[in-house]
Amino acid sequence: MYIQETKYRVRYADTDQMGYVYYGNYARLYEIGRVEALRSLGFSYKEMEDSGVMMPVYENHSKYIAPALYDELLTIRTTVKTIPSARVVFHYEILNSADKIVHTGETTLVFVKMENNRLTTAPKDLLEKLNPFFEK
Amino acid sequence: MYIQETKYRVRYADTDQMGYVYYGNYARLYEIGRVEALRSLGFSYKEMEDSGVMMPVYENHSKYIAPALYDELLTIRTTVKTIPSARVVFHYEILNSADKIVHTGETTLVFVKMENNRLTTAPKDLLEKLNPFFEK
Amino acid sequence: MYIQETKYRVRYADTDQMGYVYYGNYARLYEIGRVEALRSLGFSYKEMEDSGVMMPVYENHSKYIAPALYDELLTIRTTVKTIPSARVVFHYEILNSADKIVHTGETTLVFVKMENNRLTTAPKDLLEKLNPFFEK
Amino acid sequence: MYIQETKYRVRYADTDQMGYVYYGNYARLYEIGRVEALRSLGFSYKEMEDSGVMMPVYENHSKYIAPALYDELLTIRTTVKTIPSARVVFHYEILNSADKIVHTGETTLVFVKMENNRLTTAPKDLLEKLNPFFEK
Repeated sequence: MYIQETKYRVRYADTDQMGYVYYGNYARLYEIGRVEALRSLGFSYKEMEDSGVMMPVYENHSKYIAPALYDELLTIRTTVKTIPSARVVFHYEILNSADKIVHTGETTLVFVKMENNRLTTAPKDLLEKLNPFFEK
Repeated sequence: MYIQETKYRVRYADTDQMGYVYYGNYARLYEIGRVEALRSLGFSYKEMEDSGVMMPVYENHSKYIAPALYDELLTIRTTVKTIPSARVVFHYEILNSADKIVHTGETTLVFVKMENNRLTTAPKDLLEKLNPFFEK
Repeated sequence: MYIQETKYRVRYADTDQMGYVYYGNYARLYEIGRVEALRSLGFSYKEMEDSGVMMPVYENHSKYIAPALYDELLTIRTTVKTIPSARVVFHYEILNSADKIVHTGETTLVFVKMENNRLTTAPKDLLEKLNPFFEK
Repeated sequence: MYIQETKYRVRYADTDQMGYVYYGNYARLYEIGRVEALRSLGFSYKEMEDSGVMMPVYENHSKYIAPALYDELLTIRTTVKTIPSARVVFHYEILNSADKIVHTGETTLVFVKMENNRLTTAPKDLLEKLNPFFEK
């Protein structure tokens, strides 16, 4: 299992007139969570794209437990629970400044070769960097 | 069962560098779908808020079947499959200009009294407008 | 002079915790205004891009006169005041449901050949469609 | 003169299908720039709002010099050039990872008492914190 945490400051741009983070804006937080989780591992999503493989989202599931509010410094805790193959699943817990979990999410992404738009499997480089976290 | 369809033109603002609608922007499409579905019924979400009841999102589930592309005129098909009580569930199918379903989603919202931030049940007015679609 | 009007319904996604349309979201309204103004003329921005010319924004100026509010049906009035050459300037007036101008904007865009990323001039087809509005 | 710099990582959510940061998303960067500039000064925008004064945008001007790209770590350099009174003006320069200025902006905001929605002047606390940067 691989776990990583990133901080995110809620901006006015994220809020709606309820005074909450708009429900659609958590997708940005997930994106930040997973890209920074990979970066911490020494893996750059951008370089993967430059090498011709992109990772579109296939499925997403979100639970809104409590509102996240303007100017809060949130923690995005991103977890990879199983070694990716044709798909990779990221789990997210979002904690507010009082360390309470206010939101959880789960995103499944697939690997696509950009030259032919065909599904492929997780890059070897990514697997090598994740493997140490999954060895017994 | 209550079904309604709304059109949505994809904007540059919705796309990302994959050339797809960014995965987080479907939330806006769902919002448009459910608010217009209610408006078609003669029910105004805004008036419900003005009367002191808001409807925050509690849960969301999305499936990305195929990309939606810039300038496509999408159809957002919104369905209410069961009469709301403490919660209301909206189902969405998003069809591209070739009438292919490219995306499905499902959002659960709750009713909250704004004066005390407490959960409440669906307004009587909403139920009265939905009831004819659920009678045998 | 060429003037065109498009309607836009304010969504929760557009608002911020002041209960106003977030100041950055007017860019979307301008985009809708100018693309629909061109479409009304029989000119498709998408087709121009497909033919290899894109139109990035070079400069933007916005005046926030009064807030636009949730669920208002705004009018985006887009004006082209001079025939484009190397640049095209769009002026926008945004009117609320009471027909009051709540916002004005002005965007300058340039034409760029996508194959070499070089500046170019307005496509002939666009000029032909705009010319009748500028003849004496 | 008061100058402050903040870093911003470009996200997929910020890009559009040109592969650039969407022109409307610079407003978020400005917001981050000015709020962090104030925070560095020991002034919290949130606390000002909690005390009943908000700061809506009155005017904005943006120049798009070169595109900002996905995953770049931008620098937002925010400058206050004159002591605020009824208005405050923030200037921004956005530098890409090669330290080239790719964008400039300028935002004028006003101070509004939330209880009566009337214009007011800059809070004393803000002036006290800015004054040392403007003394001869």
